[in-house]
Amino acid sequence: MMRTRPLKVALLGCGVVGSEVARIMTTHADDLAARIGAPVELAGVAVRRPGKVRAGIDPALVTTDATALVKRGDIDVVVEVIGGIEPARALITTAFEHGASVVSANKALLAQDGAALHATAQQHGKDLYYEAAVAGAIPLIRPLRESLAGDKVNRVLGIVNGTTNFILDKMDSTGAGYQEALDEATALGYAEADPTADVEGFDAAAKAAILAGIAFHTRVRLDDVYREGMTEVTAADFRSAREMGCTIKLLAICERSGDGASVTARVHPAMIPLTHPLASVRGAYNAVFVESDAAGQLMFYGPGAGGSPTASAVLGDLVAVCRNRLNGATGPGESAYADLTVSPMGDVVTRYHISLDVADKPGVLAQVATVFAEHGVSIDTVRQQGKDGEASLVVVTHRASDAALTGTVEALRKLDTVRGVASIMRVEGE
Amino acid sequence: MMRTRPLKVALLGCGVVGSEVARIMTTHADDLAARIGAPVELAGVAVRRPGKVRAGIDPALVTTDATALVKRGDIDVVVEVIGGIEPARALITTAFEHGASVVSANKALLAQDGAALHATAQQHGKDLYYEAAVAGAIPLIRPLRESLAGDKVNRVLGIVNGTTNFILDKMDSTGAGYQEALDEATALGYAEADPTADVEGFDAAAKAAILAGIAFHTRVRLDDVYREGMTEVTAADFRSAREMGCTIKLLAICERSGDGASVTARVHPAMIPLTHPLASVRGAYNAVFVESDAAGQLMFYGPGAGGSPTASAVLGDLVAVCRNRLNGATGPGESAYADLTVSPMGDVVTRYHISLDVADKPGVLAQVATVFAEHGVSIDTVRQQGKDGEASLVVVTHRASDAALTGTVEALRKLDTVRGVASIMRVEGE
Repeated sequence: MMRTRPLKVALLGCGVVGSEVARIMTTHADDLAARIGAPVELAGVAVRRPGKVRAGIDPALVTTDATALVKRGDIDVVVEVIGGIEPARALITTAFEHGASVVSANKALLAQDGAALHATAQQHGKDLYYEAAVAGAIPLIRPLRESLAGDKVNRVLGIVNGTTNFILDKMDSTGAGYQEALDEATALGYAEADPTADVEGFDAAAKAAILAGIAFHTRVRLDDVYREGMTEVTAADFRSAREMGCTIKLLAICERSGDGASVTARVHPAMIPLTHPLASVRGAYNAVFVESDAAGQLMFYGPGAGGSPTASAVLGDLVAVCRNRLNGATGPGESAYADLTVSPMGDVVTRYHISLDVADKPGVLAQVATVFAEHGVSIDTVRQQGKDGEASLVVVTHRASDAALTGTVEALRKLDTVRGVASIMRVEGE
Repeated sequence: MMRTRPLKVALLGCGVVGSEVARIMTTHADDLAARIGAPVELAGVAVRRPGKVRAGIDPALVTTDATALVKRGDIDVVVEVIGGIEPARALITTAFEHGASVVSANKALLAQDGAALHATAQQHGKDLYYEAAVAGAIPLIRPLRESLAGDKVNRVLGIVNGTTNFILDKMDSTGAGYQEALDEATALGYAEADPTADVEGFDAAAKAAILAGIAFHTRVRLDDVYREGMTEVTAADFRSAREMGCTIKLLAICERSGDGASVTARVHPAMIPLTHPLASVRGAYNAVFVESDAAGQLMFYGPGAGGSPTASAVLGDLVAVCRNRLNGATGPGESAYADLTVSPMGDVVTRYHISLDVADKPGVLAQVATVFAEHGVSIDTVRQQGKDGEASLVVVTHRASDAALTGTVEALRKLDTVRGVASIMRVEGE
């Protein structure tokens, strides 16, 4: 049963993602209409630079007045692919107030203001969908929110930033250092001129906040996410990882505590076993591992960025929101009923790989081992390497809290025989 | 906003999956209520053997009269985990007629009668969901139907049967033959006493029909799916695969033709490169690779069977159907508007690995090569191995139609110098 009056879509932003959304809306109009049950029409495109030629987009639809576009009142769905906090936040809010539902790809905004935006959407009886905000084309928010709605998710462990995975994969496969691998990523267009958001983990932290909130049915703010970048990972760290049968990935990790009463969310580089499915995720691909009570271990893999993959996720949401609109219904909104405590990083329990530069003399290992024992951190393995009066100790611990490990490292630094802490890396995925 | 009148659920079947669904509905009642917006209540459980003790299920709910249960009229959702064609089909139809929506895990029924059941559901304005019918806990139907609703899927390539993957993985990792690996699978409970449905590919073919229909928005009947089991895969085939940098998997492959006007669906063992993400899927796990225009390559991985994983998928659907019911809406039904031709196996184009036993004398390769050329099948590589007057030729072809390859093999068998065709295996995932 095809309705003939089209659903009207306003597109905010016409860059890499927006132009691809517009292109697919045009070239696949018949398919979209058949799947939705009514045609969809691009009713306006808000851009910053009106002069730019946009292939396939009717110039009459282009405007620089995004606010007027979302206020028109006849818009069914606003697609926001501008990014950043403002003006995106104000435009989305205005869109709800003027009767539109919203599809967004804006991870920074959702991580920071998701709760408020969901509240506004609900108040106006509208949808807010944002599959494209996390891991590009990979269906992840919908599976977590809907497919696993009858299950209890305990852990989300993912590679959610393609730039850093490209760099780390390059370091792993070629033995290159961080700077060399970054330079190649920049030359190939995988890293931006200012790579800070990626390499310092800000991008992954925003995604971790969104994923944790959805997975655990609770609110997790961006400030709740512990964040450590990957700029200090060295070629030597990769060699150490190999010796343990591991590689190094920048991971977003969201976990429920053993008693179920609290959760943690963090982003940092970590060693993971080569046998773990995430270890073989190459190049700029993303993958997210989900562990739940009943389903067990699931993994979702695919391109985490790029115009077309992100547009695929946006259009999937657009179809869903349009269907809801024709049904006079809305999809699942925010689910934060569990209202769990978000614990600080000190409460996180995991394993650690610590490299120490030490004096090459008898008794050093005993001293170091005593410090670990005093802080309640149990040692799994120790490897000593020495030459020319210098030596290194590589300690791998059993599971311990981050607070206990931090205390251990502080005490180790005070030992006369410890010349330096060369690296500390968490070991995950075991 | 919590509604207090509960949604009533009738459970048909209380075996491995059904008992787990009932258990989670009880133990996670509060979570389910919060996520749905109303409590759900187990209103009846239809079983064949009423005497069996069922932990945690109120005996007063148990009945052997499944028909009376679905006819009660106060049931909101019927969960069908009986399996098989009848009485499941009649019960589901009766459920729709009496006002219930249906969640099913029944791949055989959906593959055979999905179109008719969808039509009945739509006629009565009810939902028919069946995420659990394909690849157990792995969210696959929802991502294909909803997340990729704005994209164009070109290919679905999957390991959708855990039993056969366990057997093939065992053969690959230990060098065991088929029977030895099957015996181990049976002893460990991965294979049933009669493994026919798994090892002959019937189970995978049903899943391929369902996946192809959803992926391509067209109807694909079970009879449309080409099916070849994996009982003739040998240890020698695995050695040949290794020499090509490949392993062997039983794959379900659904493809759109180059011109987009037709599709094919097939199940057979195939070599795939060790670098392909599906190659590293171990044991009884399932994984499905999806290729689409905009999203690119996606993969979904997880446990493909078992009580808890299947229950996770059933409960995800139950939550969705309950939400729809509270919204007075239904989710996306069958989407078969594309109405594409399903082409026969002869039209499938892929690469082939063929082992021939030949006479060890000059000119044999020239004869063989001529036969390939006459049938328009281009050879990529040939490897000759000879000793004691016997020799083998291993030919790997470029892409050719299955019809051309079949003609080639028939002609090869007629050559005096060809003593036998030792194996023919398709090469996929390149």
